Amino acid sequence: MATVKLWTDEDVSGNAAVKAVFDDIRKTRGSDFVNNFWRALANQPLLLERTWASLKTVMVEPGVLDPLTKELIYMAVSIAHSCNYCTHSHTAAAKAKGMSEAQYAEFLAVVGMASETNALANALQIPVDPEFQAG
Amino acid sequence: MATVKLWTDEDVSGNAAVKAVFDDIRKTRGSDFVNNFWRALANQPLLLERTWASLKTVMVEPGVLDPLTKELIYMAVSIAHSCNYCTHSHTAAAKAKGMSEAQYAEFLAVVGMASETNALANALQIPVDPEFQAG
Amino acid sequence: MATVKLWTDEDVSGNAAVKAVFDDIRKTRGSDFVNNFWRALANQPLLLERTWASLKTVMVEPGVLDPLTKELIYMAVSIAHSCNYCTHSHTAAAKAKGMSEAQYAEFLAVVGMASETNALANALQIPVDPEFQAG
Amino acid sequence: MATVKLWTDEDVSGNAAVKAVFDDIRKTRGSDFVNNFWRALANQPLLLERTWASLKTVMVEPGVLDPLTKELIYMAVSIAHSCNYCTHSHTAAAKAKGMSEAQYAEFLAVVGMASETNALANALQIPVDPEFQAG
Amino acid sequence: MATVKLWTDEDVSGNAAVKAVFDDIRKTRGSDFVNNFWRALANQPLLLERTWASLKTVMVEPGVLDPLTKELIYMAVSIAHSCNYCTHSHTAAAKAKGMSEAQYAEFLAVVGMASETNALANALQIPVDPEFQAG
Amino acid sequence: MATVKLWTDEDVSGNAAVKAVFDDIRKTRGSDFVNNFWRALANQPLLLERTWASLKTVMVEPGVLDPLTKELIYMAVSIAHSCNYCTHSHTAAAKAKGMSEAQYAEFLAVVGMASETNALANALQIPVDPEFQAG
Repeated sequence: MATVKLWTDEDVSGNAAVKAVFDDIRKTRGSDFVNNFWRALANQPLLLERTWASLKTVMVEPGVLDPLTKELIYMAVSIAHSCNYCTHSHTAAAKAKGMSEAQYAEFLAVVGMASETNALANALQIPVDPEFQAG
Repeated sequence: MATVKLWTDEDVSGNAAVKAVFDDIRKTRGSDFVNNFWRALANQPLLLERTWASLKTVMVEPGVLDPLTKELIYMAVSIAHSCNYCTHSHTAAAKAKGMSEAQYAEFLAVVGMASETNALANALQIPVDPEFQAG
Repeated sequence: MATVKLWTDEDVSGNAAVKAVFDDIRKTRGSDFVNNFWRALANQPLLLERTWASLKTVMVEPGVLDPLTKELIYMAVSIAHSCNYCTHSHTAAAKAKGMSEAQYAEFLAVVGMASETNALANALQIPVDPEFQAG
Repeated sequence: MATVKLWTDEDVSGNAAVKAVFDDIRKTRGSDFVNNFWRALANQPLLLERTWASLKTVMVEPGVLDPLTKELIYMAVSIAHSCNYCTHSHTAAAKAKGMSEAQYAEFLAVVGMASETNALANALQIPVDPEFQAG
Repeated sequence: MATVKLWTDEDVSGNAAVKAVFDDIRKTRGSDFVNNFWRALANQPLLLERTWASLKTVMVEPGVLDPLTKELIYMAVSIAHSCNYCTHSHTAAAKAKGMSEAQYAEFLAVVGMASETNALANALQIPVDPEFQAG
Repeated sequence: MATVKLWTDEDVSGNAAVKAVFDDIRKTRGSDFVNNFWRALANQPLLLERTWASLKTVMVEPGVLDPLTKELIYMAVSIAHSCNYCTHSHTAAAKAKGMSEAQYAEFLAVVGMASETNALANALQIPVDPEFQAG
């Protein structure tokens, strides 16, 4: 269904640059499973490398937002962009990071509410209050 | 700049249904400031009432996600929808709820990263891994 | 604020192809007012001609949907695309075609509701019911 | 394919809150068929209840816009948001409410035209005419 | 999976207006293959005719942008709109027009980068520099 | 109008990390002008550094797509995302890289056409032809 070939582990084993990224994904995640996003990006080794490096910096390295909060933000963006693949993969990631049923329900309520009021604000072309302007 | 009149406090004082909502907004938020979103919605009193009731349920009532996390999700949706008003108002709300500079920086990195990989996944039309499907 | 010059009536008078379109817009609408959309498109006379011809066919010629219904559909698309200019211009057009306050209120409620359930359906990645497939 | 389980009628029968909503959907629509949207939302009973209550208010209760016009607006929003599920379900609903082939053809022409001019207006960053501003 | 019937060649042969368009598509492209987009639009013969006429003018007639550049622009828009069908069909068209693996890789990098910085600019609500305004 | 302070050159001079990026932007572009995007990102020095490094790799370093083609792709994405700032800045960049009036006109025609057919394909939920699937 993709516009490019999805690389199998055998394909990966024949390309050192791609193999290095896949090895690092497996080691970083502590799992042998590598999802289709990386198997598709493998066709463009430089983009694969850069994208994984960014993702590791942004989503894996410890910071001031906890990992689940970052996944919820990622899910929200993916849903608003109607990215089916990303919604599936990051919802799965959020569950793996401990998202409870109750948290998912509240997340869905916020995303639905935001989408509704976004539409209303866009419809009414509401001017930004001076109070909301920065410095 | 709006497609409708923005109600002043004087306009509001002449309409009991609208006044009741504005009074509740002020009481709930502990502040006299009512932003333009509600002043625009005041033209449609029923929609105003329903929207405020939903927002109170979703964003004000205590739940399992903390208030700042809910604002970050709201911001993410608003940014992805290019809703200028909502981005301004919910970024201001997040700051009011304690979002630090460091948290904002990480939030921006996640939103940027998600937007980039959303585009890549959509471009490559990557099929969803069976591992991501719910039971 | 535009990325191109907005043509004044004096500019238009110096270009026969553009003038012909502006004359037809004025005649068709029975008004001397020509809005900025056409003054910006005037920089690309062929695109101006094709766009006005399409708009006349789709929005002006009588059909099976009444003119106000067509404007409401146009507004809905413009809002969902966060097109500020189009939202303003087509809301003004709908008012000119008789949209009442009550109709506007219901329109906004539908657009808000649709945006909310779109987000929920995208979030949950709900499979299409076989009952909804066309023969 | 969903990120959550789709509730069967047997699942529903074991949860009083969910059953009450499903019973009301069936009664309101005069049909035994309950589509997957509600079967997915059933995992979050409170969101299910609130969403159905809103939908009933907005789409079922009589108002000043006729039911088919409301479905056309709903379809337009769903298409612009690339919501596959919603486009399918609301196109089916519009057909059930009497949308003719000719009406569908005109609807598609308006949605296509709006999308094209939205892109042009966004591309050219056209400033809003003062004539379009509300009082 | 469509909301309308996809016309087979046999269906097409029974409708002169539709057949004329299909014949022209085949002749223009020098190929017997007619993709599903046209088989779906065949249900609305006037829209089919207008859409094919526009596409021929915009994408087939020689101009100042080369055919591959036009396909890359078409792909970029389709990806940003999350249009799965269009992304597939125009990526295939770009490959047919000679898009190399290296060009595809750079295209993807630009689309990803643009999506990321679009989100950042929307998030920060950055005011347009006066230097970017047209004369 | 931004959600953050825009850094002046004086602000920049007091922060070594930010200054290094601004110096490199000026050197790379051969111009003293630094646009607001970077002045806003300066509040998040790490994000500023990463974003500029990516932009340099993707948009400045020589590749197989010429610089103007890359700007046209960037513009197309920005328009489809309704990013006002990005549309302005990348249209200005395309003009600086030699985009002619005729090229801009064709670009606009392609973007408009793509947006129209994206909407039609999404509306009709057209299934992807097997011929468009990758090996």
